[in-house]
Amino acid sequence: MSEDAFDNIKHQIREFASERDWDKFHSPKNLAMALNVEAGELMEHFQWLTEEESQQLDDGRLTEIADEIADVQVYLIRLADRLSIDIPAAVSAKMIKNAKKYPAELVKGRSDKYHYYQK
Amino acid sequence: MSEDAFDNIKHQIREFASERDWDKFHSPKNLAMALNVEAGELMEHFQWLTEEESQQLDDGRLTEIADEIADVQVYLIRLADRLSIDIPAAVSAKMIKNAKKYPAELVKGRSDKYHYYQK
Amino acid sequence: MSEDAFDNIKHQIREFASERDWDKFHSPKNLAMALNVEAGELMEHFQWLTEEESQQLDDGRLTEIADEIADVQVYLIRLADRLSIDIPAAVSAKMIKNAKKYPAELVKGRSDKYHYYQK
Amino acid sequence: MSEDAFDNIKHQIREFASERDWDKFHSPKNLAMALNVEAGELMEHFQWLTEEESQQLDDGRLTEIADEIADVQVYLIRLADRLSIDIPAAVSAKMIKNAKKYPAELVKGRSDKYHYYQK
Repeated sequence: MSEDAFDNIKHQIREFASERDWDKFHSPKNLAMALNVEAGELMEHFQWLTEEESQQLDDGRLTEIADEIADVQVYLIRLADRLSIDIPAAVSAKMIKNAKKYPAELVKGRSDKYHYYQK
Repeated sequence: MSEDAFDNIKHQIREFASERDWDKFHSPKNLAMALNVEAGELMEHFQWLTEEESQQLDDGRLTEIADEIADVQVYLIRLADRLSIDIPAAVSAKMIKNAKKYPAELVKGRSDKYHYYQK
Repeated sequence: MSEDAFDNIKHQIREFASERDWDKFHSPKNLAMALNVEAGELMEHFQWLTEEESQQLDDGRLTEIADEIADVQVYLIRLADRLSIDIPAAVSAKMIKNAKKYPAELVKGRSDKYHYYQK
Repeated sequence: MSEDAFDNIKHQIREFASERDWDKFHSPKNLAMALNVEAGELMEHFQWLTEEESQQLDDGRLTEIADEIADVQVYLIRLADRLSIDIPAAVSAKMIKNAKKYPAELVKGRSDKYHYYQK
């Protein structure tokens, strides 16, 4: 039986934290903070780039960004695990809500509608 | 052949954005911003709770949090897609680095070491 | 004539950016990003601490935190400057709104009301 | 003798929190979280705008942004107050460090140097 990719990462993180006796630091509150700190480090790479430059990164920069993406992903899966939230199920449910919230015919290619509907 | 859970979400988001002609808004720079905005909304649920309270959330709150976790996940997968970064591979690579950076025997259960090594 | 503390910092930052020809990087969009990145670095100091520990920091840590607070303050004043927003006036206006939104007699010492009213 | 603008806001916030018995929620840890949440709400206004659009905001949007800037400022001053950090002094000290870190003649108008030196 092949395990789901999310479950696979979840179990790796559980083991990693358990071996280090770090479960006690991993309250949902603290994990939400750590997630935001890592998201900020990810964003730091883009802050002074133009949008166009942000599409044309060299390999060194991409490797650093991949590391930051991994950090965000790890804390997101760990937080969901601590709250018994199933991420793929949560994403499916949210995508259905989003499809109703942003009907393609109404928001198509319009940044004003996009902004409006984002609110 | 079953598709990987990450690829499955990635393709759903691609279709969702394409139908709305939103690809033009989805530069890596903008997606990194959107990811941080959603991470902030996720953290908002925890800001005035004690760590203990953050472990004992009622179902209504958990549903709201699951939606925010989904939003973060969607933007993370979308950002990685735009940069051709494979998230499960990035996580695997990062977990190996972390295991070297935080040797279990050195950091076990010690928050000071934890802090120190987090730097 | 004594200058207001906010104006004083604003003029120092203007000169600093101008001498380095950095005005071109300082769009409101980029400054909002930089502000969030610095806010994340500030929060990093607190992520694994208990609330109580966060009140009892040693001098070395406090110096690092003071630097991060300064970074956030600098970008906040720079962003407001770029948008011709007067921070003390904006704070006064917001404090009046907050006083109406959170009437002392209703929210006094109640974290549930606090949470509710924060929404 | 006129009071400093920062001290003036600090005392207003102290009174506001005290009247509501909210001091107990205002640990430095929680305030750092709240600051980040508000910084995210501020950034939300800019996430789908081009840099150019972010310079040309209408009055309605500017009023909303002024409110968010005020929220960030309030939590920053409150956090500094709880840690007995003097913001104008911290900014002065940091500006001196920055002037050494980014010598005008080396970084002038160069985004690559800017990125590099930002690290």
